[in-house]
Amino acid sequence: MNKINLAAAFAEVTEAWSPKIAGDINDFQVKLARFEGAFDWHRHEAEDELFLVVAGRMRMGFRDHDVDLDVGEFIIVPHGVEHRPEALTEPCHILLLEPATTVNTGDVETKRTRRMLDRLSPG
Amino acid sequence: MNKINLAAAFAEVTEAWSPKIAGDINDFQVKLARFEGAFDWHRHEAEDELFLVVAGRMRMGFRDHDVDLDVGEFIIVPHGVEHRPEALTEPCHILLLEPATTVNTGDVETKRTRRMLDRLSPG
Repeated sequence: MNKINLAAAFAEVTEAWSPKIAGDINDFQVKLARFEGAFDWHRHEAEDELFLVVAGRMRMGFRDHDVDLDVGEFIIVPHGVEHRPEALTEPCHILLLEPATTVNTGDVETKRTRRMLDRLSPG
Repeated sequence: MNKINLAAAFAEVTEAWSPKIAGDINDFQVKLARFEGAFDWHRHEAEDELFLVVAGRMRMGFRDHDVDLDVGEFIIVPHGVEHRPEALTEPCHILLLEPATTVNTGDVETKRTRRMLDRLSPG
């Protein structure tokens, strides 16, 4: 049984908006993502998503308001709700917790869509 | 859409080994727990569990080894694996991610079994 140190693990997450899988919890996954600038507006048909700020600061844009998050803060975006994550700092390290079926750009296909994610290297 | 600040939220978690629900992600829940001393040995028939240290230090005991975790480290305990969480510091604040069906003492019934958990007060 191995533990994951988040600070060390993020050293392996080098490409912005291309999360790496850090663990499986039944049919859910922990993913580690590096945010840079603003992402694409999208929504997930079925999956709720948790965003926890590990380093830096992010903004979660909704169509009618924004929520800014600091280190140690999280937000859950319910399925069906359009949203746009955005980095407010560089670096901006985010832990995602969501069903394994979740595709990063949800209902839209963009150059940043990632359907197959790499895993962190073991221990 | 509200965010949760973990440091502020833990002020509401006053009873050891009695987690509060901080959010729902589909059929999963985020729970915030205060650990004190050692918990009961148990396992979960079906549910994997993630433990992330938010403040302090903890030990995850397994029957053949221990894993010590610091702030910013997490471990996933697969279903079926006997384990015993233990606080190594006071305070010891842990974020749990697990299926909503998870009962804290798993396959055993002890004085610390909690079947109905309170939720954090809204925003």
